[in-house]
Amino acid sequence: MVARERDVRPIGVFDSGVGGLTVLRALQARLPGEDFIYLGDTARLPYGSKSRETVERYSLQCARVLIARGVRALVVACNTASAAALPALRAAHPELQVFGVIEPGAIAAVRATASRRIAVIATPATVQGRAYELQIHARAPEARVRALACPLFVALAEEGWTEGPVAEAVARRYLAPLFETVERPDVLVLGCTHFPLLRPVIRAAIPADTALVDSAETTAAEVATALGGTGAARGSGKLTWLATDGAARFAQVGSRFLGRTIEPQEVELVDL
Amino acid sequence: MVARERDVRPIGVFDSGVGGLTVLRALQARLPGEDFIYLGDTARLPYGSKSRETVERYSLQCARVLIARGVRALVVACNTASAAALPALRAAHPELQVFGVIEPGAIAAVRATASRRIAVIATPATVQGRAYELQIHARAPEARVRALACPLFVALAEEGWTEGPVAEAVARRYLAPLFETVERPDVLVLGCTHFPLLRPVIRAAIPADTALVDSAETTAAEVATALGGTGAARGSGKLTWLATDGAARFAQVGSRFLGRTIEPQEVELVDL
Repeated sequence: MVARERDVRPIGVFDSGVGGLTVLRALQARLPGEDFIYLGDTARLPYGSKSRETVERYSLQCARVLIARGVRALVVACNTASAAALPALRAAHPELQVFGVIEPGAIAAVRATASRRIAVIATPATVQGRAYELQIHARAPEARVRALACPLFVALAEEGWTEGPVAEAVARRYLAPLFETVERPDVLVLGCTHFPLLRPVIRAAIPADTALVDSAETTAAEVATALGGTGAARGSGKLTWLATDGAARFAQVGSRFLGRTIEPQEVELVDL
Repeated sequence: MVARERDVRPIGVFDSGVGGLTVLRALQARLPGEDFIYLGDTARLPYGSKSRETVERYSLQCARVLIARGVRALVVACNTASAAALPALRAAHPELQVFGVIEPGAIAAVRATASRRIAVIATPATVQGRAYELQIHARAPEARVRALACPLFVALAEEGWTEGPVAEAVARRYLAPLFETVERPDVLVLGCTHFPLLRPVIRAAIPADTALVDSAETTAAEVATALGGTGAARGSGKLTWLATDGAARFAQVGSRFLGRTIEPQEVELVDL
């Protein structure tokens, strides 16, 4: 019997910007030996304000760049692109495993809820697209899902104001009304890749017995399971950064999201 | 002697999104009889995170759409595009009067300062591009300009949280350090088209004897003077809305910026 050769090709991850680095961070924690190529389509962010067709087209272009660099799997680390483009990506690249961030979060939410009342916070585009509701209802048709757009959380995360009185005031203003009813949810899904940075202030603004589902975490767990890795080194843990514009800003803001320093000269600019 | 015929062609105004509607609002207050065509390049916003070359190219495309609709003058109601694209727009369209938002704000700031210490708040891109410093120093080389990026103000304006404890906390956090020195500025320039919506909380967060320069106001004043209008009706006060994506969101958020309702069905989607 011949031992199957290890596939040492990198895993491709893309997002409209730096938000997906929270997903990469979670992936790296579970798969520290893997090589990753991260593409931030910073020239065209945000995807959230664009039409479904446009986001699909952009996502296919991001995938092509990563595939040209030899990735063996693709993680769509962006809620908007996950909602809009997964079917098209899978149809265009049947040879590739393609993961999104919404389905794992929805599965985890259904697992965590006892009351069948689930709250989701996300960007306006994700809320409008009802992607979490669809995925949750496919598994728990009786669940009651309340989705709330929290765009200020995105701005706070990008500005680095993730603690202190401003972040606390924003979290209270968004979240208190969600939990002030007698029929309050027992699960809150962080349905935007920016929100894990605000996890402590979000945690402090909701009842202590509410379960928090971090879709970056749940996505990383699914990818690790599907790719069969639990830390067994395949590559060398190498990280490659691609962006479509603004290397300096990608490095500066991205470092906060990744939790370690990215140098501007490490970021390669690519044209899509 | 023959009376010169009135030029009833509309005035074109463009921005990357809805922010420029504060400029349009100020223009309309001064030129109520004029017709305006407003183009928000919402599919490609924000311009602030893009390279100068890209912003120049996008601005030329916006101008072409408006020129094809017969405008007689062009107002670049966007700080990023004003900083990046005015020379290219003027070179490409010598027959047209082209106005930006930065020069009028800089002129007003130099007029208003006694201490020659001027503060400018803007987006990260405008701050990084040093456009206000350049324009101020061209007129007052000895002036000391302190520019501060306030991206949370943009998010607050778009969310409609323009008053209350969150807006006040954000304003204090950004602005207090600017004025806590003995060499504090005596003029604050609102160098982003989103910021006039936050004028009351900004006003409350700075010393009472600081002059506020609103670049939407100063731009409207310059355009009104240059076009010779002071309310004498030329057109019928008609407003036309063009956007490159997301008519519903343009109408919803834009209504706040304009100060009156825009209906989604009034917004025509155009391709650039």
